[in-house]
Amino acid sequence: MNVPIRFNAQHTLKSAVGDHGLDPSDFDAQVGLDAVVGFRKRVDSGEVGFPNLPMDQNTAKSVEKFASRLRSEVDAVLVLGIGGSALGPYALDTAIRGPHPVQVDKKKCPKLYVMDNVDPGFVSAFLENLNPKKTAVCVIAKSGGTAETLSTFLIVHEWIVKAIGAKKAVGRFVAVTDEHKGDLLAIAKAEKYQTFYVPADVGGRFSVLTPVGLLPAALIGLDIKKLLHGAHDANQASWSRKLETNPALQSALVHHALDTKRGKKIEIVFAYSAYLWGSAFWYRQLWAESLGKRVNRQGEVVHTGQTPVAALGVTDQHSQVQLYAEGPNDKMITFWAVDKYRTEIKIPETKNFLQYDAVAYLAGKKLSTLFHAERTATEAALTEAGRPNCRWVLPRVDEYYIGAFFQLLEFQTAFCGELYGINAFDQPGVELAKKITNGLMGRKGFEDYAEKFGSKKA
Amino acid sequence: MNVPIRFNAQHTLKSAVGDHGLDPSDFDAQVGLDAVVGFRKRVDSGEVGFPNLPMDQNTAKSVEKFASRLRSEVDAVLVLGIGGSALGPYALDTAIRGPHPVQVDKKKCPKLYVMDNVDPGFVSAFLENLNPKKTAVCVIAKSGGTAETLSTFLIVHEWIVKAIGAKKAVGRFVAVTDEHKGDLLAIAKAEKYQTFYVPADVGGRFSVLTPVGLLPAALIGLDIKKLLHGAHDANQASWSRKLETNPALQSALVHHALDTKRGKKIEIVFAYSAYLWGSAFWYRQLWAESLGKRVNRQGEVVHTGQTPVAALGVTDQHSQVQLYAEGPNDKMITFWAVDKYRTEIKIPETKNFLQYDAVAYLAGKKLSTLFHAERTATEAALTEAGRPNCRWVLPRVDEYYIGAFFQLLEFQTAFCGELYGINAFDQPGVELAKKITNGLMGRKGFEDYAEKFGSKKA
Repeated sequence: MNVPIRFNAQHTLKSAVGDHGLDPSDFDAQVGLDAVVGFRKRVDSGEVGFPNLPMDQNTAKSVEKFASRLRSEVDAVLVLGIGGSALGPYALDTAIRGPHPVQVDKKKCPKLYVMDNVDPGFVSAFLENLNPKKTAVCVIAKSGGTAETLSTFLIVHEWIVKAIGAKKAVGRFVAVTDEHKGDLLAIAKAEKYQTFYVPADVGGRFSVLTPVGLLPAALIGLDIKKLLHGAHDANQASWSRKLETNPALQSALVHHALDTKRGKKIEIVFAYSAYLWGSAFWYRQLWAESLGKRVNRQGEVVHTGQTPVAALGVTDQHSQVQLYAEGPNDKMITFWAVDKYRTEIKIPETKNFLQYDAVAYLAGKKLSTLFHAERTATEAALTEAGRPNCRWVLPRVDEYYIGAFFQLLEFQTAFCGELYGINAFDQPGVELAKKITNGLMGRKGFEDYAEKFGSKKA
Repeated sequence: MNVPIRFNAQHTLKSAVGDHGLDPSDFDAQVGLDAVVGFRKRVDSGEVGFPNLPMDQNTAKSVEKFASRLRSEVDAVLVLGIGGSALGPYALDTAIRGPHPVQVDKKKCPKLYVMDNVDPGFVSAFLENLNPKKTAVCVIAKSGGTAETLSTFLIVHEWIVKAIGAKKAVGRFVAVTDEHKGDLLAIAKAEKYQTFYVPADVGGRFSVLTPVGLLPAALIGLDIKKLLHGAHDANQASWSRKLETNPALQSALVHHALDTKRGKKIEIVFAYSAYLWGSAFWYRQLWAESLGKRVNRQGEVVHTGQTPVAALGVTDQHSQVQLYAEGPNDKMITFWAVDKYRTEIKIPETKNFLQYDAVAYLAGKKLSTLFHAERTATEAALTEAGRPNCRWVLPRVDEYYIGAFFQLLEFQTAFCGELYGINAFDQPGVELAKKITNGLMGRKGFEDYAEKFGSKKA
């Protein structure tokens, strides 16, 4: 394996957790290989493009070139986007600079703000807090027609033009969208905005290594070449035909078997790193939207898909672990662990406090020792309670490993799509709500939806 | 009903969602009444205390008096706590002042920061960003012995003492803990910290209206009397013996029936307000830790408890709704809706953009119209897909309604505990992990746990 991110499924086995665990007989190596081969065909045929992204150095270069100029002009980068157009940038930001509100300082780099909602109070809070004279705006929508993103674009556009004038505003907007179609593309062309493109064969939830994620990342000072380098190494491992050197495939097989053979309809992603908490929400979309499907590729009704739940260690030990340990055994837990943290802190041996029993054993220890001990203890306790759990381990949270980890998780998802026999790359289940919204908003051609669904009062 | 927060379960019925919905025969009014009567006995006997909190005006007065003095000295309030000691303050902060990082300004009031983890990189980011000369610290731990809270206390104590000296530091620390026991109480007494108490009959996840929540709320300028007023009105409704005027009981019956009679093992809390997103995490603890139990009150193994999932509208329409609409029909969705938002924004009718089809129907509309339409559309689409869903509606998100809503949800949880026949007020499932952690950290008396569980390497 080229990418030193480890996957450990020991606690998913019967030998660890009893009847709720997996047997060797639950795995079929040939089925796993078929998934790799099947998915490879989709990539080679041009149906699915995310595995090609790490090789595209040119896009990264032009993004970095553009960003290095704009970066120094602003102190805020405002992303207007939703779903994959927001979760990717947010995950990268919080992985490297830390969770808001107290982020790691990157000298002279602006901070990232993601406006991924249309709650009026939420939108106005951005306008009240940010400086329109010092804000760069990334408008991100693959389709180019997303209602939420175009609405916030109109609002933010007016706000910036008022502050700095229409001419100067042009230089503060960047569009990321499809290369050939959509109203955002047309607007960007007409307004002469810098524009970057999302390849047609890369869906929103797989787009973090396109300019969707790379542009905001570069603007806030992240090393996007390292992101791609990590993803490149993850590619190498993920195309391996040997199960033992292909962690994405191992993970796909374990997830699929625990769902379909042991009824684990819920996956808890238990991130033992505050820096991976945003990434858990990125993963939540990847997993839910890719695998939550009504029909398989043969058109049979199957209703697949685990429900992903984001949990944060150690925090959620004091909120969710009671349920995980004692509630229904209908879940698997996937720990995301980290070997080495951004910093180390020693718990001080403050003289006044050493006399207290609840303090004495902590004083003088490293905080990372406590953090590790809590994860180990939680894994052990859940295993003892018969709850299957597995673990990804990242040596560190930096651009290289994040690029690699995200790519591994995308491969895991794609392989799982093959195992379920469903299309992991569409999202037909969201169309009806979009049409009803259009109808309720008075868009032409959608009058029937307004009439049929809109009358019921809240 | 005294409290004008509405509960609507129309879309949980067979008439709306078909076979996955509930029948009138799934409800037994007497069972509901028995739950009220049964829970009332626990309150009257002193076993459970949260319903008494709204009547305690004296605590609120002394908290407000103390806070009004300290508030002007600092620009940051740092909460050291975890679980209920963090989620309550965080939920109140984000409900009223908005989600971080761009919060609503409250003139001259400090901002809230919650350090509810021991990730070393996370803890150090606070110390790098906050000013130790202008930070007040609330150390919150009911038991007084929580390892995470005591560890961060030692670290933050050293940091503040270094900056302003030991003598002045005394005035910057406040402890919230049990009145009669625990090392935090002993430390606070020895150091002469201002101290507030958590009643012995109020557990962490039910403690938001004790000083656990009231003190941080008062320090950042929230109106805590209004919180209690709302909760008081929620009490009135929740003790009603008439189902039609008791929304907490209605909700409890619907949740319990959907879980036990229709297999909805997952509850999606779909908050259609960015201001309620923090509250969804508070609720997640309340629901998971209270109802996730191995045994019932008779000691029979039952493994109860829905898995709560926090979702944010409209954001998660672009991340999770595909799964909710098409995946396994194993979930119920509870919408949290709001009638009126903090602000209103009009989507501008910018001349240049009106020619575009994807923009024209949005321009000139209120943003709240879009936000409402999207919720209505999502509810309708999920109903059409046969997914049972219900709805809480708050007229506004302010202190009064938040106080009322949280109290309603606590009553709902308590009633559900009666319906399942389990103890909703303990958390035996987290003890083993705590003991193993103690063992791994070298605490005396826990050597056996380290030996049995600690040897496995990550």
